[in-house]
Amino acid sequence: MAFTIWTKHLRHSPRNPKWMGRDRFILSGGHGSMLLYSLLHLTGYDLPLEQLQNFRQWDSITPGHPEYGLTPGVEVTTGPLGQGFATGVGMAITSSHLAATFNKPGHELIDSYIYAIVTDGDLMEGVASEAASLAGHLSLGRLIYLYDDNHISIDGSTDLAFTEDRAMRFESYGWHVQIVDDGNDVDAIDKAIKAAKTDLRPSIIMCRTIIGFGAPNRQGTSKAHGEPLGDEELNAAKDNLGWEKEPRFFIPDDVLAFYRKAVDCGRELEADWKMRREAYARLFPDLGVEFNRRILMGKLPEGWEAALPTFPADAKGMATRAASGKVINALAPKLPELLGGSADLAPSNNTKIDGTPAFQKDSYAGRNFHFGVREHAMGSILNGMAIFGGLIPYGATFLVFADYMRASIRLAALSHYPSIFIFTHDSVGLGEDGPTHQPVEHLTSLRLIPNLTVIRPADANETSQAWKVAIENRHGPTVLALTRQNLPTLESPALVEKGAYVLRDYGTPEVILMASGSEVSLVLEAAQKLADEGKGVRVVSFPSWELFEKQDEAYRESVLPKNIQKRLAVEAGATLGWERYAASVIGIDRFGASAPAKVIFERLGFTVENVVEQSKKL
Amino acid sequence: MAFTIWTKHLRHSPRNPKWMGRDRFILSGGHGSMLLYSLLHLTGYDLPLEQLQNFRQWDSITPGHPEYGLTPGVEVTTGPLGQGFATGVGMAITSSHLAATFNKPGHELIDSYIYAIVTDGDLMEGVASEAASLAGHLSLGRLIYLYDDNHISIDGSTDLAFTEDRAMRFESYGWHVQIVDDGNDVDAIDKAIKAAKTDLRPSIIMCRTIIGFGAPNRQGTSKAHGEPLGDEELNAAKDNLGWEKEPRFFIPDDVLAFYRKAVDCGRELEADWKMRREAYARLFPDLGVEFNRRILMGKLPEGWEAALPTFPADAKGMATRAASGKVINALAPKLPELLGGSADLAPSNNTKIDGTPAFQKDSYAGRNFHFGVREHAMGSILNGMAIFGGLIPYGATFLVFADYMRASIRLAALSHYPSIFIFTHDSVGLGEDGPTHQPVEHLTSLRLIPNLTVIRPADANETSQAWKVAIENRHGPTVLALTRQNLPTLESPALVEKGAYVLRDYGTPEVILMASGSEVSLVLEAAQKLADEGKGVRVVSFPSWELFEKQDEAYRESVLPKNIQKRLAVEAGATLGWERYAASVIGIDRFGASAPAKVIFERLGFTVENVVEQSKKL
Repeated sequence: MAFTIWTKHLRHSPRNPKWMGRDRFILSGGHGSMLLYSLLHLTGYDLPLEQLQNFRQWDSITPGHPEYGLTPGVEVTTGPLGQGFATGVGMAITSSHLAATFNKPGHELIDSYIYAIVTDGDLMEGVASEAASLAGHLSLGRLIYLYDDNHISIDGSTDLAFTEDRAMRFESYGWHVQIVDDGNDVDAIDKAIKAAKTDLRPSIIMCRTIIGFGAPNRQGTSKAHGEPLGDEELNAAKDNLGWEKEPRFFIPDDVLAFYRKAVDCGRELEADWKMRREAYARLFPDLGVEFNRRILMGKLPEGWEAALPTFPADAKGMATRAASGKVINALAPKLPELLGGSADLAPSNNTKIDGTPAFQKDSYAGRNFHFGVREHAMGSILNGMAIFGGLIPYGATFLVFADYMRASIRLAALSHYPSIFIFTHDSVGLGEDGPTHQPVEHLTSLRLIPNLTVIRPADANETSQAWKVAIENRHGPTVLALTRQNLPTLESPALVEKGAYVLRDYGTPEVILMASGSEVSLVLEAAQKLADEGKGVRVVSFPSWELFEKQDEAYRESVLPKNIQKRLAVEAGATLGWERYAASVIGIDRFGASAPAKVIFERLGFTVENVVEQSKKL
Repeated sequence: MAFTIWTKHLRHSPRNPKWMGRDRFILSGGHGSMLLYSLLHLTGYDLPLEQLQNFRQWDSITPGHPEYGLTPGVEVTTGPLGQGFATGVGMAITSSHLAATFNKPGHELIDSYIYAIVTDGDLMEGVASEAASLAGHLSLGRLIYLYDDNHISIDGSTDLAFTEDRAMRFESYGWHVQIVDDGNDVDAIDKAIKAAKTDLRPSIIMCRTIIGFGAPNRQGTSKAHGEPLGDEELNAAKDNLGWEKEPRFFIPDDVLAFYRKAVDCGRELEADWKMRREAYARLFPDLGVEFNRRILMGKLPEGWEAALPTFPADAKGMATRAASGKVINALAPKLPELLGGSADLAPSNNTKIDGTPAFQKDSYAGRNFHFGVREHAMGSILNGMAIFGGLIPYGATFLVFADYMRASIRLAALSHYPSIFIFTHDSVGLGEDGPTHQPVEHLTSLRLIPNLTVIRPADANETSQAWKVAIENRHGPTVLALTRQNLPTLESPALVEKGAYVLRDYGTPEVILMASGSEVSLVLEAAQKLADEGKGVRVVSFPSWELFEKQDEAYRESVLPKNIQKRLAVEAGATLGWERYAASVIGIDRFGASAPAKVIFERLGFTVENVVEQSKKL
């Protein structure tokens, strides 16, 4: 399968792994990483043999599972099963969208195929089912997945747990299904890939293979899955295949020469694409400029920030989810790369871009995306959109359902994918839907993920600034946690990019009240009350721990001076971790309740009276 | 659908909601909770009309989504989509297992059907796909799911995102698929349910329905999904259906009398079952006693703890996952209710019970369960097993993949399901597989979930005790976090149930070193070194925050005296939260790396030298 894809179909340029006109290849079963590293080395990527010999060692760029951004030519981080499968769907969506946006008849600059080798484990994972259903719905014909149907998983035969009719299942999703009886038959696979290219549906080619093929005593068994072959069996395999036993890493010159033709071939593909791009730019100068900006340079348009709305102070205010919807719609005309949607909660998440169609199979240029009730696939698809190039994707659901897509969020953070996750209904403040829908531990559990920026804005203006941070953060994912309920729009100028800032000082502060999101206006009220009693109070709005930790010592000291240790944090979520900043916390270390928001907040201590009381205790 | 199930098929006893012989009914689309509450009220459960009138109010037992344990007759917490679907599969597995274990020809004490009404949203969720594939594989004929095929989701028509051929998809899983063209046709549904009962496969009956049926201006639209009808449309609906407008909650006497027949009917079913149970106990006295203990009383056998193994001190020791495997096998003969397995990592998770077959469609009495690579379904299925009665289920994967099943874990905690989650490979100590497989933030993110007990044992003996806690914890889920790598078996007697305990004092402690799991032996070494230099050191083994927080103040003070604030915590995971107990933390606030475990630990500061140095700094 790999040989056929890499030597007969894949358009790529090993000396320029980021060449935008390339096809993408995904090894969804990332535990086979050495296959990918071998292909990259053989075809001339900057991955010397020493790196292969240094497999899975500290500081090597050949880790146990492929990592995006670490190894040239690795298109996506894989290992957690199903993720490669679903991320590829995001790439195919992006390819289709950019093609619909930029291509002109005779000028098909964007025509990437997304190839993947997928495994039994991938197909068993729910995230792949979700993504496959969506890919079929959207008729993503540029997806060509080869299924390594080897009948073996770690526990043993796939007959132990996986006997569904896979071909029928993919047909039910609307895929083009082909079967290759012998996964070592290059011609049959080649023919199937050619047929896949001409079919308008996504394609899966089910290739019957033998795991550990060539290792005479291990092939076809689960031992070939996770255990090293060992020297003896490796020798037996080499004997069996008529291969030299020494050196252990042996590449015949003619083999290397054959594979390395990919370098020149890639240069030619690039040169041809460049020529076509120049012709396109001459014929369609505006589109050419935009193509250059969005696709080749990946730059934001000059002065885009001017489109960020500001909101006048207003006691009634609005929900931050509503503010987010306004920001999206203010930015959308200036940032055509902004595309996104919701996991079937668009009216609740306020994600719709007005006046643009949905992304559907007959309208790939559409920018409103319907993920369906498929949070996990949404996460992985956003990741694929974020790394293909040319898009700034966002996806939304309720904060509590971040749990469904946590594996995708983590991979985005690990791999520095600039995905934007919008999570509304961010506390018990959502009210009557009750504890199954009320996040409690979620903010902190997301803050725990390294390289993930979590922002919980306090009002409409902080929401606008939070979007600015998210759009400018191109080296990792961003979470926006937004309210269902209305919040006052505050008077003070917001300063989200600092993570925390002094919202107001009442006299000379003896105590600091800090809060995020919906609790900021609560502590402001409490502070006013304390000030009325002659107390000195500082109110700190604290929308993001991660952004605050990035500030220098002097700034952090200016906001939270060491000499004021009487500090109370207020957040409608788990208290854990606020100890870093505060001496005392009003939070929620239990599940929520089904009741009107006002009642819940009162019962759980989120009242001006309680904040005042806890402050006085300090 | 509900009428047909509840008045023509469901065997239940409203005055004894926990009657073990009953069928189970699951409303998987929990947002329709009022349907379920209405049925419970009408059929005579202890749910007075006032509770329905107090819908979604503080202290009512009619929350926005049904909650297990709160409302009599609610069999499972639903709302997060797909969970009800998958949890029902766990119930059907349990029903099949108990039937295979206890039933004798002519004495079918266990023959529960699992009915559910499932929705578009359920079918779109990956967790349902995973569970459906497994249910088909296992031929769980006692599953009868009615699909509320109303063509509407929150975003609008299901045509926006969900156009797969659902019937074909379920056929591919090996389900029995029937279609009812009119979801209001009671006879057609009745006939389909009867056919489902005689089919050996799990059944899905696809019923074409109209959302908001009867509300003349809303039916068939997405507005009928999430928005209240409002008074005007409610009146229009009542007019349309020929119903009294006042009182707003109006139940005609004859209707109530009709439904309330369920009470007497239930008593008769119970009486008949009791008679059959007594006959069974006479004929099969040993089984009768066991049935009584396991199924009716849900009690552990007397003296079962004697089977818990202890391990002699041993410097080489063993991995805690290996110790866990030994505990499982030591307990399995004494606790026949212990049943579990792994999401295709059994050899790595050490979950296999030796000498017992796998649970398969031709061996439902088997106790080794193959979940396949389906972590999320595993979580929900365990929950279903845990609440059906008669089983103590466990399921395993790598700790990093707890992310895939987090929604199920949370529901278990919220609903007090006694599921046991075994997560091995619990740190960067798993080595070469690298950051995609190395948990970092996971321990703390699990500790954040209310009512979840997380235990990370330090050696084989703590592992044995952790299992004791897990098995005795029948009011919530337990997580066991276990190592891949070997750990010394320590000399000191373990005391896991206290959460934290003094493992050793060297002199009069000036400093406390605390650690969990694999880091305990590390801090012991460091303590010895400090003691050799004449320092007074206490070593605290800290396997579980939750268990420690349950201890009284005096005990906690005895372990962590307030007058010793020089405290260092060492754990191979995120540092956040350890501030509660320690002044300083050696932890990991970054992603891991692919390298041998020893190298990673050294590079990240998990060395005797660094622990000594950080202690001295304190």
